[in-house]
Amino acid sequence: MNKLYACLGSGNCFKPWLAMHQLMIPFEIEMIDVLKGAQKSPAYLAISPLGVVPHLVTHTGAGIGESNAMLWYLAEDSDLMPPTAEARAEALQWMFYEQSKLEPFISPARFFTTILPEQRDSRADDILTWQAAADAGLARLDAHLEKRDFILSTGYSIADIAIFGYVHVLEEAGLHMADYPAIARWTDMVKHTDGFRPLSELGQPKSKAA
Amino acid sequence: MNKLYACLGSGNCFKPWLAMHQLMIPFEIEMIDVLKGAQKSPAYLAISPLGVVPHLVTHTGAGIGESNAMLWYLAEDSDLMPPTAEARAEALQWMFYEQSKLEPFISPARFFTTILPEQRDSRADDILTWQAAADAGLARLDAHLEKRDFILSTGYSIADIAIFGYVHVLEEAGLHMADYPAIARWTDMVKHTDGFRPLSELGQPKSKAA
Repeated sequence: MNKLYACLGSGNCFKPWLAMHQLMIPFEIEMIDVLKGAQKSPAYLAISPLGVVPHLVTHTGAGIGESNAMLWYLAEDSDLMPPTAEARAEALQWMFYEQSKLEPFISPARFFTTILPEQRDSRADDILTWQAAADAGLARLDAHLEKRDFILSTGYSIADIAIFGYVHVLEEAGLHMADYPAIARWTDMVKHTDGFRPLSELGQPKSKAA
Repeated sequence: MNKLYACLGSGNCFKPWLAMHQLMIPFEIEMIDVLKGAQKSPAYLAISPLGVVPHLVTHTGAGIGESNAMLWYLAEDSDLMPPTAEARAEALQWMFYEQSKLEPFISPARFFTTILPEQRDSRADDILTWQAAADAGLARLDAHLEKRDFILSTGYSIADIAIFGYVHVLEEAGLHMADYPAIARWTDMVKHTDGFRPLSELGQPKSKAA
């Protein structure tokens, strides 16, 4: 069985967790308390040598880092994998865009605004810089989504899950969903896909989450 | 026929260019002079709406951005695509690593050290920051390569091309190959793979490059 190592509230951890729910892939989950530094414990470093969360150990025993690589692995030969070579390339294009133009800015802005708000004032300048960079990336995404229901014209896919991970919590980074009407509509579409579960259920007792 | 829009000296442009050479995929190439801002010309924006180089227009007319997404597209069903789902996931893991832990630091350090050296002094602090971040990413890569000939144990793949793009020119970013002995050995291995062409030939007249 696949085993996911995850931490509460993380958009990156949410991605493979949501995909396994939507694909009905059975999995175990172990929560790592990164705010207490548990990702640097010897026990965890023996599992994830770089001390990174999320980490997926597959049913064959292979270890996979990087949330978007996990999505690709989980979705192979499923309905969440785009159906053509061109669509797969476009999916990866957006998944790389997410990791270079969205996540590196939304994630720290959210961390110091909402997850660790006691440091908000001391990081005020950084937060403004991250928000401005995130806004540039989000504006391009919004323009893209004006023309279609999902990221790809071929339908809901792992590209949506990859981008949804952090984009759907952009308000927690001090940004405003009302500024991105196409993203707002798309966010609602994703929430109504089959088997969707919210980020708030990540790490909840199995009776609720699985 | 595929058409690649590229710019001189770019590690990201080099990746799909090298892959097409090694896979013997015929292609056209058009060089975009980014130092003169040609990527923001109306003509180029009509091709690449985000004004990004490289850009690949496939033989079916689809446009692909992001160098590592191009690699995936070009390598599907070829010897450069890893053979198992686990190996494909590990390839993507390293390709995302390259775009978050290596390229964002090696590329600007190299740009202001070697490509635009007249700005080197005014960006000295930034260059030191980029070099330190690149060193952290390179040290992990070096430790990984101590154990194997190529990025994946299954052999030479698009993961090698993705990482080679910027790592092989780390000295142009003011870093020292002697600090990374496993990377140095691997770099030499890649240069001896079938059909290899050096970055210096990118954009040279077709009689030499193709």
